[in-house]
Amino acid sequence: MQAIKIFILSDSVGETAHAVAQAGAAQFGDLDITYQRFPFVRTESLLQTVLAQALKEHAIVYHTFVDRKLSQSVNVFCQAHDLPYNDVMTPTLDLFSGITHRQPVNKPGKMHDLNTNYFDRINAIEFAVTYDDGKNPAGFLDADVVLLGVSRTSKTPLSLYLANRNLKVANLPLVPKAQIPDEIWQVDPKKIFGLTNDPEQLNTIRRERMIQYGLNPDTVYSNTDKIKAELAYADTIFKKIGCLVINVANKSIEETATLITESLGYNEPNR
Amino acid sequence: MQAIKIFILSDSVGETAHAVAQAGAAQFGDLDITYQRFPFVRTESLLQTVLAQALKEHAIVYHTFVDRKLSQSVNVFCQAHDLPYNDVMTPTLDLFSGITHRQPVNKPGKMHDLNTNYFDRINAIEFAVTYDDGKNPAGFLDADVVLLGVSRTSKTPLSLYLANRNLKVANLPLVPKAQIPDEIWQVDPKKIFGLTNDPEQLNTIRRERMIQYGLNPDTVYSNTDKIKAELAYADTIFKKIGCLVINVANKSIEETATLITESLGYNEPNR
Repeated sequence: MQAIKIFILSDSVGETAHAVAQAGAAQFGDLDITYQRFPFVRTESLLQTVLAQALKEHAIVYHTFVDRKLSQSVNVFCQAHDLPYNDVMTPTLDLFSGITHRQPVNKPGKMHDLNTNYFDRINAIEFAVTYDDGKNPAGFLDADVVLLGVSRTSKTPLSLYLANRNLKVANLPLVPKAQIPDEIWQVDPKKIFGLTNDPEQLNTIRRERMIQYGLNPDTVYSNTDKIKAELAYADTIFKKIGCLVINVANKSIEETATLITESLGYNEPNR
Repeated sequence: MQAIKIFILSDSVGETAHAVAQAGAAQFGDLDITYQRFPFVRTESLLQTVLAQALKEHAIVYHTFVDRKLSQSVNVFCQAHDLPYNDVMTPTLDLFSGITHRQPVNKPGKMHDLNTNYFDRINAIEFAVTYDDGKNPAGFLDADVVLLGVSRTSKTPLSLYLANRNLKVANLPLVPKAQIPDEIWQVDPKKIFGLTNDPEQLNTIRRERMIQYGLNPDTVYSNTDKIKAELAYADTIFKKIGCLVINVANKSIEETATLITESLGYNEPNR
């Protein structure tokens, strides 16, 4: 397999350039790719050192520099030495310059301004951690989103992903015969989402988890009949509540989260 | 202030296009921007409906389509109607086509393949939630990163952000006179990071938190002398451990996280 080395250069953390590189790479099947990030590159001399290294390693260069002198330097260097590159920031800066008739402020990392929305996001993350796993039923009443589902339907990572989009999320595992907290019945069903999965996929995931724990994978936890019974129980609860049900089988956290924000008609506040 | 409407179009969730738009916008000071996401646009007819809406609202169009027919449609439409647009996906697809001499697989959302790294990420998120706030000292021994810091130095969101980059993180709040768990002294100091902050910023953050709670903001919790004593105590612990200390004042979670991954020489696995 062709080995590909990608250098991510940025005067901030390089997250956006990394995401764009990964989005491209994902469309080309199995590739042997190594990503290397060079964040906080804010001087021409440091930049030249990194570029010399890129040339030596025949790397592909993805970059986001808010300083146009630095992004120009990268582009000129890559063109001169025939290194493939993607300047992620310049088109979006040009676009906003055109609309606002202003020049960019050239402040790296400005995206992460410590504004109110930023603190709201931190509060939402802490909320998700506090009210994970039905820990405290009071959370259901304050939450923007309540997730219900049997074990291994990605309630926790989904809660945190949504928190990162400024939503306060509480989740509750559904276990047959366990009592559903009264608070659930006081929540607007539009805020509640039932997570389900295919029995086969749950079986595979749960077996893997048992193996990770160094336990026998063939326990009641991964028994397909038991899983089907759990899912059927969850289904009756979802029907009783009248909430939207999402089957997370073969869906990524991002996709499930987007179905939820769409259903809520939720638009993330500006960061 | 000029009102700007940005439409984010994608055949997947639109996260990358949203990030690029925000990175551009952040460089132009105060703007009155509304973002609206249109995820999972996978047919020409749905696309045309959204584009007609964009035209009606004079929106700026950011898009990521792995289907080149759809991205071409957007670009042609925007050019014909003089709508500003940014095609985030095509340059990265062209770049990989050039290197691999292959055509993209045109599978939307492929970025979020449910591979081993994906499950590792979910495990890391669950780890961070389980071992948040010093809940169980056993976590310190299994963690890739241990965060120590006084209250309001963003330990929890930082733990989750690093978890999202596949690192297992446990954190411990430092409270003067409280016992430090023995496990901390068994951890490689290179894995430990001490978080500190400026007393003034901590005072502001803590006062705000008290107000949020509907409490008097002028408590011992936000008293500057007490805060200084807490920070001094934390400092002696950091020195005793011999760990790297990061002052999070005016740093975003992303920036602090990047300082940590750089210090570890950590390269995120491919997603």
